[in-house]
Amino acid sequence: MKDSILILSGGMDSVTLLYDKQDTIAMAVSFHYGSNHNDREIAYAKLHCEKLGIPHIIIPLAFMKQYFKSSLLEGADQIPEGDYNGDNMHSTVVPFRNGIMLSIAAGLAESNGLKHIMMANHGGDHALYPDCRPEFVEAMNQAVSTGTYVNITLNAPYTHLTKADIAKKGKLIGIDYRQTWSCYKGGAKHCGKCGTCIERKAALREAGINDLTEYEE
Amino acid sequence: MKDSILILSGGMDSVTLLYDKQDTIAMAVSFHYGSNHNDREIAYAKLHCEKLGIPHIIIPLAFMKQYFKSSLLEGADQIPEGDYNGDNMHSTVVPFRNGIMLSIAAGLAESNGLKHIMMANHGGDHALYPDCRPEFVEAMNQAVSTGTYVNITLNAPYTHLTKADIAKKGKLIGIDYRQTWSCYKGGAKHCGKCGTCIERKAALREAGINDLTEYEE
Repeated sequence: MKDSILILSGGMDSVTLLYDKQDTIAMAVSFHYGSNHNDREIAYAKLHCEKLGIPHIIIPLAFMKQYFKSSLLEGADQIPEGDYNGDNMHSTVVPFRNGIMLSIAAGLAESNGLKHIMMANHGGDHALYPDCRPEFVEAMNQAVSTGTYVNITLNAPYTHLTKADIAKKGKLIGIDYRQTWSCYKGGAKHCGKCGTCIERKAALREAGINDLTEYEE
Repeated sequence: MKDSILILSGGMDSVTLLYDKQDTIAMAVSFHYGSNHNDREIAYAKLHCEKLGIPHIIIPLAFMKQYFKSSLLEGADQIPEGDYNGDNMHSTVVPFRNGIMLSIAAGLAESNGLKHIMMANHGGDHALYPDCRPEFVEAMNQAVSTGTYVNITLNAPYTHLTKADIAKKGKLIGIDYRQTWSCYKGGAKHCGKCGTCIERKAALREAGINDLTEYEE
């Protein structure tokens, strides 16, 4: 039954979830909040929705670039290079981004007669992003359920998986990960050096996928 | 200590809270989501912040008018007249509006080094708006706390008060309620007939305030 709305960035995780749960996804939503890489990733979000015939909308949140503090919103040269871990990547946190996206998705769901919101947060994000952790997901599930007439629920099926686990799912499905975007710098090609590029490479390697991403390096 | 951000519509309740807790409010935020009465109410939000020297920002959420279903977003003639109760006012619900505003306020708080979000929901809204009820407030408090680095908390001190209780507070403070906006129709004057006008009149009457609002009727 198609009664879910998916938050779809156009990265590996949410694109995998789009294919994985396509039978239950009535629509997908991407958010343009002014990061360096929004244009790159949203182009892939759009492409995959068109392929699958799933309606896709893009919500502009320009105020986040104006009022929020995050290196992700401040130009490619502000993005840290090196490992994807808490200390190194802390500056890239966009405060409460998932809460904002989930809340808007809840309103969209209720406006469109849908019952569930779906999000592709995963275990590798827990150390870094508080709004990816199981306790946040559970609290937000309570909030959207109690705060809507139809008691919308939040479904985050990858919460306890690693990014490599997700890539393995994608391999089985046959997803072409060249048609996804990770790099926080948002250049013409993936930089290959920032935390998200390094995390991407490791996940594809661990899943036994031949990484055909074009890297700058 | 000024470590809170207040969600300020420019209506009676949030304007009262602004004065009531002014010593703890570092900034206030209004949301322009495309309702008929946003311009009217936000003008008062701005005016009171200027009076008190509290920084005030306005966040545009134009996508809500485009994608959300609510009579509040569909022109003055769609607003029901008569009592402020669930059956009559149901069409005015903007799905998960408080969740969206609170989530954005949480991100603004963390970006600005603040610790708390404040909202003026009250007991009279419970029957009508799921995202004003105590169980929603508690769940959302958990969500903003677990989803932010600094464990932001939500403070909704009027949750168990009536609108008349709030007006009584305002009377003690000496608030001039002519400088607040309620009417959902958003005309040049308060219509005096819609649910929110009727609720406004009743609260002022019950608080023993001489209602100097200019009504159309």
